[in-house]
Amino acid sequence: MPASLTLYELAGADPELRFSPHCWKTRMALAHKGIEAERRPWRFTDKEDIAFSGQGLVPVLVDDGEAVSDSWRIAEHLESRYPDRPSLFGGEAAQPVSRFVNSWADSVLVPAISRVILIDIDGIIHEKDRDYFRSSREQRYGMRLEEVVSDREARLAELGRALAPLRTILRHQPFIAGNSPLYADYCAFGPFMWARCVSTTELLAPDDPVFAWRERLLDAFEGLARSAQSAQAG
Amino acid sequence: MPASLTLYELAGADPELRFSPHCWKTRMALAHKGIEAERRPWRFTDKEDIAFSGQGLVPVLVDDGEAVSDSWRIAEHLESRYPDRPSLFGGEAAQPVSRFVNSWADSVLVPAISRVILIDIDGIIHEKDRDYFRSSREQRYGMRLEEVVSDREARLAELGRALAPLRTILRHQPFIAGNSPLYADYCAFGPFMWARCVSTTELLAPDDPVFAWRERLLDAFEGLARSAQSAQAG
Repeated sequence: MPASLTLYELAGADPELRFSPHCWKTRMALAHKGIEAERRPWRFTDKEDIAFSGQGLVPVLVDDGEAVSDSWRIAEHLESRYPDRPSLFGGEAAQPVSRFVNSWADSVLVPAISRVILIDIDGIIHEKDRDYFRSSREQRYGMRLEEVVSDREARLAELGRALAPLRTILRHQPFIAGNSPLYADYCAFGPFMWARCVSTTELLAPDDPVFAWRERLLDAFEGLARSAQSAQAG
Repeated sequence: MPASLTLYELAGADPELRFSPHCWKTRMALAHKGIEAERRPWRFTDKEDIAFSGQGLVPVLVDDGEAVSDSWRIAEHLESRYPDRPSLFGGEAAQPVSRFVNSWADSVLVPAISRVILIDIDGIIHEKDRDYFRSSREQRYGMRLEEVVSDREARLAELGRALAPLRTILRHQPFIAGNSPLYADYCAFGPFMWARCVSTTELLAPDDPVFAWRERLLDAFEGLARSAQSAQAG
């Protein structure tokens, strides 16, 4: 085992509620590699606690004294540092293409899901984070949190359309990476865990191939994601 | 060399104008493998000419008597039939993830580009195809061709937003597949060749990383795509 790993994860008022989509990518990556890390709860306003990483966002992984931030760079770090453990990408050629999936997850999936669940985050975060969260998000969207999620049915329909590229390939293969999941899957799964952690709203119809894919990932690693603290697991 | 390959490609009134986005994926794949094929012009209404393939769309590749349709299945066929030639995916693990890029190109990029150039297709196709093209597309979109492309500036802005996942990774790497192009790149490049073949409208700003990526692919294989007959090359 590696000597000492620490992962800073975004937490809610309940320190066991770890809800960041990007931290979930890293958590699944660590499980895939079979690597344990001490998981420290961190809140949006705890900027000083991770100032050593040179920036202000989680996940931050500290691996034997080296700080790595940004979930994509953490995945690259784990792949190169632990080459004898199961590969996150399945080979060198798949790594840059997997980055496209990560980019799609961040630029399409996260915004589409946020239009459904953003207000729910306000209900689960620590009291000290609430001003920061509201003001930063209202600035980003140019509207009040309540307006971001207005007309839920229309937003769910937009999310459904945004999922077309994922839905199409899942009609042909059980995972984005083929017959078993790799980091490309965790990139797209992280945003769904974010929703599951903070909201009781169901994003997917049961007959959507994306629903069955999400179920398979909830079951992965002995139900790691399914058993995590969440608004849906209670 | 393989004994005999024939590729049926969608052509305009000018038989040298080969404008299908999906045929362009296959054409780049053949060039990548270094495989020559006899390229036969085909029009939308020439259904009987490819009835032997069991369906009515191009590309259709006939490889030593075996008919393969659908550009993705043609890529899989070329990869497995010609394993000693340069790989289209860079390994087994990258193939299913590359399919996500293809799915994104078909479900996001093709529709977004069509909202800009669809009416231009009406101007370059064979006279015998025009009724079929207009009626099938107007049924698909539920509006007249002229309405599909109305408000060009808004449609170009939507395309710009749809390109976010591609633009983001191209800030880190020259191709979707990393340092050199693979089939994942050709999947996204095909729709841009479609636009170049039929329309003089510029889809991208010169400072967009997607513009530079498209230039690199226009230059690939000794300028195969750049020198092809098109509305932009003349």
